Amino acid sequence: MNVKILLEYDGTNYHGWQKQNNALTVQEVLEKAVYVLTGERVSIIGAGRTDAGVHARGQVANFRTNTRIPVERLPYALNSKLPEDITVKGAKAVPDDFHARYSARAKVYTYSIYNAPFPSPLLRRYSYFFPLPLDVEAMRRAGKAFMGVHDFAAFRASRSTVKSSVRNITRLDVKKCGDLITIEVEADGFLYNMVRIIAGTLLEVGTGKRDPEEIPSIIESRDRERAGVTLPAHGLCLEKVIY
Amino acid sequence: MNVKILLEYDGTNYHGWQKQNNALTVQEVLEKAVYVLTGERVSIIGAGRTDAGVHARGQVANFRTNTRIPVERLPYALNSKLPEDITVKGAKAVPDDFHARYSARAKVYTYSIYNAPFPSPLLRRYSYFFPLPLDVEAMRRAGKAFMGVHDFAAFRASRSTVKSSVRNITRLDVKKCGDLITIEVEADGFLYNMVRIIAGTLLEVGTGKRDPEEIPSIIESRDRERAGVTLPAHGLCLEKVIY
Repeated sequence: MNVKILLEYDGTNYHGWQKQNNALTVQEVLEKAVYVLTGERVSIIGAGRTDAGVHARGQVANFRTNTRIPVERLPYALNSKLPEDITVKGAKAVPDDFHARYSARAKVYTYSIYNAPFPSPLLRRYSYFFPLPLDVEAMRRAGKAFMGVHDFAAFRASRSTVKSSVRNITRLDVKKCGDLITIEVEADGFLYNMVRIIAGTLLEVGTGKRDPEEIPSIIESRDRERAGVTLPAHGLCLEKVIY
Repeated sequence: MNVKILLEYDGTNYHGWQKQNNALTVQEVLEKAVYVLTGERVSIIGAGRTDAGVHARGQVANFRTNTRIPVERLPYALNSKLPEDITVKGAKAVPDDFHARYSARAKVYTYSIYNAPFPSPLLRRYSYFFPLPLDVEAMRRAGKAFMGVHDFAAFRASRSTVKSSVRNITRLDVKKCGDLITIEVEADGFLYNMVRIIAGTLLEVGTGKRDPEEIPSIIESRDRERAGVTLPAHGLCLEKVIY
């Protein structure tokens, strides 16, 4: 049986999704939970390979299992073996060719900025604190310029190795709720650090350091040096994967 | 100078507000920060003596100091000496007779319930997880019955020692936002565990175990045994103190 699971996790204590030596990752903890539960050594494929410190409210993953546990009981069974910062929120049987990463049509990420004079102890783990005033209207205008099919080479970490850097951003909303500014981005795929660099560029638009009208030429330049800083991981959250 | 400060803190790692032997408290950490900063051994008075694990977004406190640091710089100076789970968000000089606790006219607390089939890693520190469906409309109706001046003896921890248990609840709202149900209570004062017992009683109304119409007779009984369970501390937050 190929099982698709829906996951939420607090990434604070993990070195990201993907298994690696000498560092605890979400994938490893999940694979261990499956092993403890079923005795099977499975390989769990995640839709988004979230970085160290990045959170997820709607990560999707899949794995193959011969367990006799009914699929609708799997979330309860797995959660009983998982730490409280990782939760399986759903499970269902899917066709054999379902692949959490390759089958995904789109993903939604949010980047949260806590914009107030003093940091918030209650939001500190899930948002980036920025104390200077931000022009949210200018950030919104700049955000619109990212939408559509573009070569986003300027907005990927330089050590990224994927071949094509063309992606389609179908939505980019900048929302303000109290002191929290949330940048929500939906695209058919994301380059390495893409959302964190877009958020850093929008932040610089918000402070007035950059003009919203600059965005198209930054995109066109395909030059990482032209875009803004990479904001820290803990403000980023994988919200949803669309199939 | 008598200084009034506004505070936010994540109560997870503290044994509450009030200083005690062999346990770390918010008051102690603050007094130590003032000492490191000014060399003064001050006694900081908090408006609400929050319990172990309880959070605050709007705690108010006051203390007397002879520091030469301008009062508007005090938040920055204190924050540089405080851990990241306690933040001073404001400071101002107040008349000598201002007392954070005795001068308070009212306080606002919220109790947050995360009501979904599976727990939320991202909200786990700041809300009580309850998986069974809740009838929010019934909770709202029951909530209204708490409003006004009543003897709330049925809604205080039995080990409470204050003389009068008469309090005036001026607002009790039950809000639902996604999977988060928030009970917001404003009163001229609160008995020990009062909000957590009211929240526990409303939860039992939400599950159908109790009828909203029972509330007046529970209040009238003045009998702690008649009210609901005391919900855990981590769902509670001191939002605001009104002077």
